[in-house]
Amino acid sequence: MRYFIDISYKGTSYHGWQIQKNAHTLQVEIENALFRLLGVQTPIMASGRTDAGVHAKQQIAHFDTAEAIDIERLKYRLNRYFARDIVINSIVEVKPDAHARFNATERAYEYYVNQNKNPFLQELSYYFPKPLNVDLMNQAASKLLGVQDFESFSKVKTDVNNFICNITRAEWQIENVSLVFHVTANRFLRGMVRALVGTLLEVGLEKITVEDFKKIIEQKDRTAAGDAAPPKGLFLSKVTYPSSIYSN
Amino acid sequence: MRYFIDISYKGTSYHGWQIQKNAHTLQVEIENALFRLLGVQTPIMASGRTDAGVHAKQQIAHFDTAEAIDIERLKYRLNRYFARDIVINSIVEVKPDAHARFNATERAYEYYVNQNKNPFLQELSYYFPKPLNVDLMNQAASKLLGVQDFESFSKVKTDVNNFICNITRAEWQIENVSLVFHVTANRFLRGMVRALVGTLLEVGLEKITVEDFKKIIEQKDRTAAGDAAPPKGLFLSKVTYPSSIYSN
Repeated sequence: MRYFIDISYKGTSYHGWQIQKNAHTLQVEIENALFRLLGVQTPIMASGRTDAGVHAKQQIAHFDTAEAIDIERLKYRLNRYFARDIVINSIVEVKPDAHARFNATERAYEYYVNQNKNPFLQELSYYFPKPLNVDLMNQAASKLLGVQDFESFSKVKTDVNNFICNITRAEWQIENVSLVFHVTANRFLRGMVRALVGTLLEVGLEKITVEDFKKIIEQKDRTAAGDAAPPKGLFLSKVTYPSSIYSN
Repeated sequence: MRYFIDISYKGTSYHGWQIQKNAHTLQVEIENALFRLLGVQTPIMASGRTDAGVHAKQQIAHFDTAEAIDIERLKYRLNRYFARDIVINSIVEVKPDAHARFNATERAYEYYVNQNKNPFLQELSYYFPKPLNVDLMNQAASKLLGVQDFESFSKVKTDVNNFICNITRAEWQIENVSLVFHVTANRFLRGMVRALVGTLLEVGLEKITVEDFKKIIEQKDRTAAGDAAPPKGLFLSKVTYPSSIYSN
């Protein structure tokens, strides 16, 4: 039996998602919990990794069990097991070949910037007090839309064989006390959202123009783009699958 | 010259407001910052203490200087000095005899309860998953209104000589994903809001009735009331002064 598990987490206390030797990661914590509660080693496979300090409103992973499980009971026990920074939103049965990484058709991220110092968002947004031209940031963001090569915004150390992504949403919005960058694509490269945000902030500061930003995309060279924005402002917010993956 | 300083803080990393020997408190941190930036020992007096782990959206304190200061510059330097969990909202000149504690006419608190596990509110609300009858909690809260003796909700160790408070607002509201208790009074006793919330939650669980709650007030005995709710859900939200305290 295969299940998809829908997880929210605050990434502050973790060395990212992916299992690492001798490091406290989200994947390790969740696999440890499943081992304790199910009594067997239960590896999980996520839609994608998140870096150290990055959060998730919705991360999806799959895992297998030899027999059908009581979904509601496992969800309840996992939420009791974890401290408050890991929350299990749901567990659903899927077809045995459904794959959390390969079947995801779309990933959405949000990046939170705060221009005013706010003591309650310390670990959940990037405090950036310099004045920003949000209109220019949105003009530049619109250049990201469509199927393009985004090598300029990928970490150099990567194991992908191409840098083509289809970005379907890229815009900044003012939401309550935050300035939020929404970006959705079929896939993302390593460090891509933080590199996009770091470069768009340079547009907002008017250090580079919208035309410069367009050229940075075309250069396919990471050194052309700006510094990565810090991880604490970044949230994986939604992962989308075709309805055909669900059993029945 | 006397100034009022308007401060927000996340109380998680501090042993409360009040100066203590060998403890990292908000008052110590702010006095240290003023000493560094002004070059002279500058004691501050707040509207009231907050306990360890309690937050403030607005805390007011006063301090004196020998000469007039550049208010905007000091605010800017203090915000640069502090990490992100202490924010200076404003500094205003007041009359030399204006007193942050004695002249405050009203204090408002908010207490945040979350019935769903939320990873992003870990240090900012009380996670309380048991079903609550909010209607009964509001019926009980309405019994708090007016001038009454609230000894039942005061810590036993206290230096006040009476327990009379005038509560002008006491109600629960649903706000986004939280259930929020709003309470306003001319003064509060030690541990009062947390004792009120703990006892109102017992009403919400239907462990005690609204009539029982009314009797608890009348008993003037702390052991009659419920346990104190944890500090992390509590925010000092507003302190009010008469306009006559401001200079000019």
